[in-house]
Amino acid sequence: MFKFFKNTVDLAHDYLESCVPPGSVVVDATVGNGNDTLYLAQLVGRRGKVYGFDIQEQAIRATADLIAAHGFSDIVTLFHAGHEKLSGYVKEPVAAVVFNLGYLPGGDHSIVTRADSTVTAVRESLVILKPGGIVSIVVYTGHPGGREEQQALEEFLRTLDKRKFCAGKLDFINRDKAPYLIIIEKSL
Amino acid sequence: MFKFFKNTVDLAHDYLESCVPPGSVVVDATVGNGNDTLYLAQLVGRRGKVYGFDIQEQAIRATADLIAAHGFSDIVTLFHAGHEKLSGYVKEPVAAVVFNLGYLPGGDHSIVTRADSTVTAVRESLVILKPGGIVSIVVYTGHPGGREEQQALEEFLRTLDKRKFCAGKLDFINRDKAPYLIIIEKSL
Repeated sequence: MFKFFKNTVDLAHDYLESCVPPGSVVVDATVGNGNDTLYLAQLVGRRGKVYGFDIQEQAIRATADLIAAHGFSDIVTLFHAGHEKLSGYVKEPVAAVVFNLGYLPGGDHSIVTRADSTVTAVRESLVILKPGGIVSIVVYTGHPGGREEQQALEEFLRTLDKRKFCAGKLDFINRDKAPYLIIIEKSL
Repeated sequence: MFKFFKNTVDLAHDYLESCVPPGSVVVDATVGNGNDTLYLAQLVGRRGKVYGFDIQEQAIRATADLIAAHGFSDIVTLFHAGHEKLSGYVKEPVAAVVFNLGYLPGGDHSIVTRADSTVTAVRESLVILKPGGIVSIVVYTGHPGGREEQQALEEFLRTLDKRKFCAGKLDFINRDKAPYLIIIEKSL
């Protein structure tokens, strides 16, 4: 049952669960504290593969620890690198790329994802996506630069050929300042 | 699999299918040519019930014929009445209320749903909704008055208590002038 009465990250997870079968190869473009990376590892399972990216050393370390603690180190590969270079690291078609924009929870709030690198990273993710693959992006707008990032991202997505991609937006009308969800699907 | 790469009405149907079990009581607030009414009858099945509303005699007749042709007359009750009076006709809690705004396809394009009666009808539908019930609204903005209707509707939905209702919006970023989907969920 696909219901909306939940928070945005859970909504993204519901969507991923409905589209990403076990054994898939997926990318966590913003590993942060590793919660989504672990979630993805559990989703794709032992026969799957997860690639994770973050520009912060702190995030990569925290994620590596979390993944190891849950015994998923063999299927997770972490890169201490900006997600705008995705296609340089990931050389196989992937079923999903997941973004969680904004800053690292509990980290330095001045280090946030930025409009230009986010747009580059999303463009890169469309390149490595296999036919029928999806991109999920949780977008926060409350922090400095958040609104600009959102605008740049949607401006880019508006230019996508609608026969090749469907870019959709799931937003809450009666929740002030809640993050919202962007999803992109590549045609089969 | 809940995918977005389809038209808005099909997206609404996917959502309804994931939330409305057979045997449910549902309302088609804008029967139009009856396509959604028939769809709902097939969705809820022989043990379910569908109430349909339209202010146009032409729409009620066309729908009655379509429903009869598919053998669903016994579970469908049609009212030649404005949907802003929903709770005066429907006296039992319903699982879903479905709206398809704009004008009657193939009918008089000057007869469209209007901002004030639409807001009243949606407010009424929240009253007859059972806990966990949903409202689905396909919103068109291209015709005269469409934009005003959208604004009035979202303004009303923004005032809903977020503990009691979740009002969400599924919109397409790279499809110009496509209708979009509003969904409202009542808490359990």
